Amino acid sequence: MSLTTEQKKEIQEQQAQSNSTKRVTVPTLEKILYEAIPALDHGFVRVVDYMGDDTSIVQSARVSYGKGTKKVSTDAGLIKYLMRHWHSTPFEMCEIKYHIKLPIFIARQWIRHRTANVNEYSARYSILDKEFYLPSSENLAAQSKSNRQGRGDILSGEQAKEVLDLLKNDAERTYTNYETMLNERYDGTKVDENKKGLARELARMNLTLNTYTQWYWKTDLLNLMNFLRLRADHHAQYEIRVYADIMLDSLKKWVPITYEAFMDYRVGGTEVSSKGKKIIKKLIKGEQVNIENSGLSNREWNELMISFGLEDKII
Amino acid sequence: MSLTTEQKKEIQEQQAQSNSTKRVTVPTLEKILYEAIPALDHGFVRVVDYMGDDTSIVQSARVSYGKGTKKVSTDAGLIKYLMRHWHSTPFEMCEIKYHIKLPIFIARQWIRHRTANVNEYSARYSILDKEFYLPSSENLAAQSKSNRQGRGDILSGEQAKEVLDLLKNDAERTYTNYETMLNERYDGTKVDENKKGLARELARMNLTLNTYTQWYWKTDLLNLMNFLRLRADHHAQYEIRVYADIMLDSLKKWVPITYEAFMDYRVGGTEVSSKGKKIIKKLIKGEQVNIENSGLSNREWNELMISFGLEDKII
Amino acid sequence: MSLTTEQKKEIQEQQAQSNSTKRVTVPTLEKILYEAIPALDHGFVRVVDYMGDDTSIVQSARVSYGKGTKKVSTDAGLIKYLMRHWHSTPFEMCEIKYHIKLPIFIARQWIRHRTANVNEYSARYSILDKEFYLPSSENLAAQSKSNRQGRGDILSGEQAKEVLDLLKNDAERTYTNYETMLNERYDGTKVDENKKGLARELARMNLTLNTYTQWYWKTDLLNLMNFLRLRADHHAQYEIRVYADIMLDSLKKWVPITYEAFMDYRVGGTEVSSKGKKIIKKLIKGEQVNIENSGLSNREWNELMISFGLEDKII
Amino acid sequence: MSLTTEQKKEIQEQQAQSNSTKRVTVPTLEKILYEAIPALDHGFVRVVDYMGDDTSIVQSARVSYGKGTKKVSTDAGLIKYLMRHWHSTPFEMCEIKYHIKLPIFIARQWIRHRTANVNEYSARYSILDKEFYLPSSENLAAQSKSNRQGRGDILSGEQAKEVLDLLKNDAERTYTNYETMLNERYDGTKVDENKKGLARELARMNLTLNTYTQWYWKTDLLNLMNFLRLRADHHAQYEIRVYADIMLDSLKKWVPITYEAFMDYRVGGTEVSSKGKKIIKKLIKGEQVNIENSGLSNREWNELMISFGLEDKII
Repeated sequence: MSLTTEQKKEIQEQQAQSNSTKRVTVPTLEKILYEAIPALDHGFVRVVDYMGDDTSIVQSARVSYGKGTKKVSTDAGLIKYLMRHWHSTPFEMCEIKYHIKLPIFIARQWIRHRTANVNEYSARYSILDKEFYLPSSENLAAQSKSNRQGRGDILSGEQAKEVLDLLKNDAERTYTNYETMLNERYDGTKVDENKKGLARELARMNLTLNTYTQWYWKTDLLNLMNFLRLRADHHAQYEIRVYADIMLDSLKKWVPITYEAFMDYRVGGTEVSSKGKKIIKKLIKGEQVNIENSGLSNREWNELMISFGLEDKII
Repeated sequence: MSLTTEQKKEIQEQQAQSNSTKRVTVPTLEKILYEAIPALDHGFVRVVDYMGDDTSIVQSARVSYGKGTKKVSTDAGLIKYLMRHWHSTPFEMCEIKYHIKLPIFIARQWIRHRTANVNEYSARYSILDKEFYLPSSENLAAQSKSNRQGRGDILSGEQAKEVLDLLKNDAERTYTNYETMLNERYDGTKVDENKKGLARELARMNLTLNTYTQWYWKTDLLNLMNFLRLRADHHAQYEIRVYADIMLDSLKKWVPITYEAFMDYRVGGTEVSSKGKKIIKKLIKGEQVNIENSGLSNREWNELMISFGLEDKII
Repeated sequence: MSLTTEQKKEIQEQQAQSNSTKRVTVPTLEKILYEAIPALDHGFVRVVDYMGDDTSIVQSARVSYGKGTKKVSTDAGLIKYLMRHWHSTPFEMCEIKYHIKLPIFIARQWIRHRTANVNEYSARYSILDKEFYLPSSENLAAQSKSNRQGRGDILSGEQAKEVLDLLKNDAERTYTNYETMLNERYDGTKVDENKKGLARELARMNLTLNTYTQWYWKTDLLNLMNFLRLRADHHAQYEIRVYADIMLDSLKKWVPITYEAFMDYRVGGTEVSSKGKKIIKKLIKGEQVNIENSGLSNREWNELMISFGLEDKII
Repeated sequence: MSLTTEQKKEIQEQQAQSNSTKRVTVPTLEKILYEAIPALDHGFVRVVDYMGDDTSIVQSARVSYGKGTKKVSTDAGLIKYLMRHWHSTPFEMCEIKYHIKLPIFIARQWIRHRTANVNEYSARYSILDKEFYLPSSENLAAQSKSNRQGRGDILSGEQAKEVLDLLKNDAERTYTNYETMLNERYDGTKVDENKKGLARELARMNLTLNTYTQWYWKTDLLNLMNFLRLRADHHAQYEIRVYADIMLDSLKKWVPITYEAFMDYRVGGTEVSSKGKKIIKKLIKGEQVNIENSGLSNREWNELMISFGLEDKII
C-alpha cells in the first residue's frame, strides 16, 4: 500500500478533528478512525464513520428513553440472549462505514452481500490507479483435488515463478495499453498530443481482474456479522479473508460485548442436523456409531466428527 | 404527550453528554438531539443518533480520502446534480435514528417502508401505555365523496361529539378490559390477587388501533427522503403527515444542502407524462388545447393544469 | 372461515383453468392452488401462484442452459449441500404467492419479515369484514411465569369465560361503533340517511387488534424458509404458528427435496456454541460435566441438555 | 453468440415442454421462452421463467379472491393510476427470471441493482468461456469533452484499428496465459501432464474485464422497471443499453398494459423542478424567460428547454 502525500495529509486532517457530540462514542474505535490498515499488497481497510455502540443494541431492544445500560453485566446478558436466539433487529441499530481498496475479482465476491450501501470509484469517470494484486509465494496454491472451489498445495520452483511472471507482465501490459487507448497516463499526462482518447467507459475493459478498485462500504452491525461469518471463515477465499480478519478486529474495538457473543455463538459454534444429533446422542451414551444407516454422506460425517474432536472416526 | 419524571431524567442525562469525536458532527441537529418533539395528542419524535452530514455525500460520491468538501459551493453543485439525476447511493451514506411514539394504525402504514431498521415496543413482553389517539375537532373529517381514500368536510355539532365519545369510550373500555384480562394495571399493580393473568401476547388483541405504540426507527438519508416524499405529501393521511413534517424539519437541520435540493426537485417539483408534454408544448406555442384526443383522463388533465397554474382549464 | 357465494365462485373459476405452459409445473401444488385452507376461526391460507420447483434451484446454481436435473439423486445431493453450507442465492430462484386472511395483531408480527412483497386490504379505501379472532378454550393461556413473552397454563372455568366474553363483547361493540361512525354497515347499507360518515381512514382506528385483515404476500423460497424457521418454531406465538404450519405443508408439496433438507438441517437441527461444544466433547469422552466453569447460563445449559436428550442433567 | 450443440439441444428440450397449469399464462411471452436473443458480439438474453401478468397487478391491488380482471379497460385504468401515483407494491406481484450472458465490466454495473436475485457462473469452480467483447467500429467512441462519463465522436482510421488490435490481442493473450496457469484449456484438455494447475480462484484474476460471464437474474416487475428506466436511458452506457432494450421488448410481450403506462409516465415523461415550473408557467403565459434569476444552472436550463422542444433557447 502506498498513499500519496496528499492522501496522507487528508487522512491526518480528519484524524486531527476533535468535535463535541452528545452521541455515544467508542474511544477504542476512534483511535483507529480514518487509518489505512494495509491489506494484501496494495489494498487497505479504513473505518471512516460509525453509529452506536453495545449500549445502542440494548437501548433499542428495550425501546428505552435513556441509554441502554444500567449495568454492563445486564447488557451483556441481553446481548448474548439476542445473539443466541437470532434476534436480528437490535443489531441493525448500529452502523459502520469503511473505505476499502481491493482487487476487482474480490470486489465481485464482496458485492454479492446486498444489504450494504456502496459507492465505488468510477472507471467511467476517472482513471484507475496503476496497482494490481500479485499473490505472495505462500499464497500461490494449486487447485485442490478434493474441493472444486478450493486450494491445494503451494506451487513452487519454476512453476511458481512462471505464474507470477505471467500475472505481472499481463497486468502491466494491459495497463499500459489502457493508457495508450485513453491517450492519457495515470498521472494525467497525454500520450500523444495529436490523438483523441478512447472513452474511459470503454478503455477500462482492457484491465485485468487483479487491478485494484476502491469503495465506500457502509452496513449495519447485523449485516456486518453476516458478512464476517461467511468471509472470515476458512471456506472463504484467502484474499477476501484478509479483509474480513481486519474488519473482525474493528468489530472487537467497536462493540466488544457483541464481538464476544458473535465469536461464541457464530464463529466458534457449529450446527448439528437432525441426523447428526442422533449420532451425537449415541456417542454420549457410549454406543457404537457408524456411517451406515446414519443417513449422512461421507463429507457430512467427517464434518460432524471434526466438529466434536473425533478425528479418529473420519473415513 | 406526557413523559414520566424518570423518562425526562433519562432524556436530560443523554442531552448532558459531551463526548469528543473525530467524526463529523452537525451542531444544529445536536441541539435537538434526544428531545421529544410532540406529535398528535400523545406521540413524539426524537432524533436519537445520526451518522454523517452533507459533506459525507460528496466524500463517498468521490470516494475521497479526506473530507468531501473543498468549497461549499462545489459540494452544493454536486449534491444538486446527484439529486436531479436520481443518483441514489451517495445519499445512502448518511444514517439517522429516531425514537417515535405513534398510534398503531399509523404504525401499520409506516412499516410498509421496508428499507429501515425497526425495534418496536413489544406487547408480548410488556404492557402498553394507557394512551390513545383522539382526533382534534378540526381533523374529524367526513369521507371524501370524490376520493375513496381521502377526507372531505369536517364533521361538526352533534355528530362530531358523538364520534369523539365513541372513540374515547371504546378505547377506555377496551383498555380497562385489557387490564382486567392481564390481571395487572398499566402501573404494575395486580387487579385481583387470586387470579392469574391472561398471557400478554393474547390480551393485547383487545386494544383498539388508536392505542399508542413506540419504536426505534433507523434509516439512511435516501430512504428517509423516499419516506418523506410520500408521507409529507398532501395525499398522505393527516396523522402520518404530522410526523413527516417534524422529520422534514430534522432533515433541514441535519443536511441543509440536501434539504434544499430535495425541496426543489422532489417536493416542489412535478412529473409530466409523455402525453402531458405534448399539451405543455402546445400551450407554450400559444396553441389551443383540450382534453379530447389528449389521451389524458379527466383526473390526469386536471392534475396537469393545476401543476402549471392553469386552474381555469380544469374540467 | 366463511366465504361468500361470490368468493367461492371466483375461487372455483380460477381452479377450473387449464392453461398450457412451457414453464415447469408442480402437480402436487397445483392440486391445492387457490384453495382457501382454514386457519384459526376465520382466517385462511391460499397459494395463488408459484414460480419454479426443486430443479430450478439446481438449474440456477449451475447456471445451466437446460433443466437443472439429470438425475434426481444428483439434484438432491446438491440441494442438501447448498442448504448445509448456507448457500442462499439458488433458493431465491423460486417464488411463491399467498393470499392470507389473519388477525391484525398477527399481521403486525408477520410484516416484520421485510424481504417479501405485500398488498394489504386497505381500510382507508374499504370497510373491513366483520370478523374477529377469539381463541378457542385450549388456547386461552395465562402469562408464563418463567418467560416474559410466553404462555403458561390454560385458564379455565369462570375466568376463561370472563375473558372470552370481554373479547367478544369488545370486538362486537367497537365494530358496531365503527359502522355507526362510518354511517355505513359492512354490507354497504347506510345507517342514517341524513348523516355523513366519518372518513374510513379515521373510523378504522376504533377496531380492536383481533379484527381480521387480509393480504397478498409473495416471497422467494429462501425467505419463506427464513420465515418458517422462526414462525413454525415452538418459540413463536401459537396464532402465527398455525399459519406457518399450513405453509410448511405447502412447502412440502412444492419443493419436496428442499423440504427434506430444510427439516433436517434447520428445523430438526440445533446450534451448539463454542462453549457448548466443549461440554459435548467431554460428554462423548465419558467425562463429568457441570455448569460451573462451563461459561453457560442456566438457560443455555438447559437448552443444550435438552437438545441432546439429557433431560436428567437439567438444573 | 455461438451456442454449442448441447446447449441448443437443452434449450430446445425446454421449449418442447407443454405442461398444464392453473396459473395465468402469457402466450406472447411463452413464444420466446428459453430463446437466446443475441446481445453484443457474444452475449444473449433468455427469459427462462415468469410469474403473473397484467391481471395479477390488479388482483393484488384489490386483494381479490378471483382474477384481477372484469374488464380490460378497468384494469388498464387502475394500472395507469398506480403507475402515475408511484404505487409500488402491486407491481412487485409479478416476477421474471432471465439467463444473461454479458461482459464482466457490464456485469459490474448491473449488479449495483440490489433488489434482484442472482446466481453467477462461478470462476472459482469452473473455467470461463473463451469469449470477450470487442466493440464494433461504430461503437468505438472517444471520450466526451463535455461529459466526464460519456462518449464523444467515433474513432476512425488508424487509431480505431490500433484500439481494436490492442483489445483483441490483450484479451487473447491473457486468456491463453489463464489456461497456462490453470494447466487446463477451456475444452478441458491438460496443457502439461506433468504440472499442477494454479487454483481457479486465483487464475481468473488474469482475465480482462471484457471477458464474458453469465448469470441467472430474477426480479419483480417493479424493480425490472426501475432497472430499465435507468439502463434503457440515453445516459446509460451503450453496452448495457443493448441488454435493456431487449428486456424492454420482453416487458412489452409480458405485461402490455403496464408497458404502455411505463412508456408514458416514466420513459417518455419528464420531471420538472420547482424552479423549472416557474419558467414553464411564464412560457405558457407568453412571458419572456431567461436563465438569469431562474436559479437554474446552464445544464438544468438546457435540459428543461430540450424537454419541451425549445431547442432555440439553449445556451
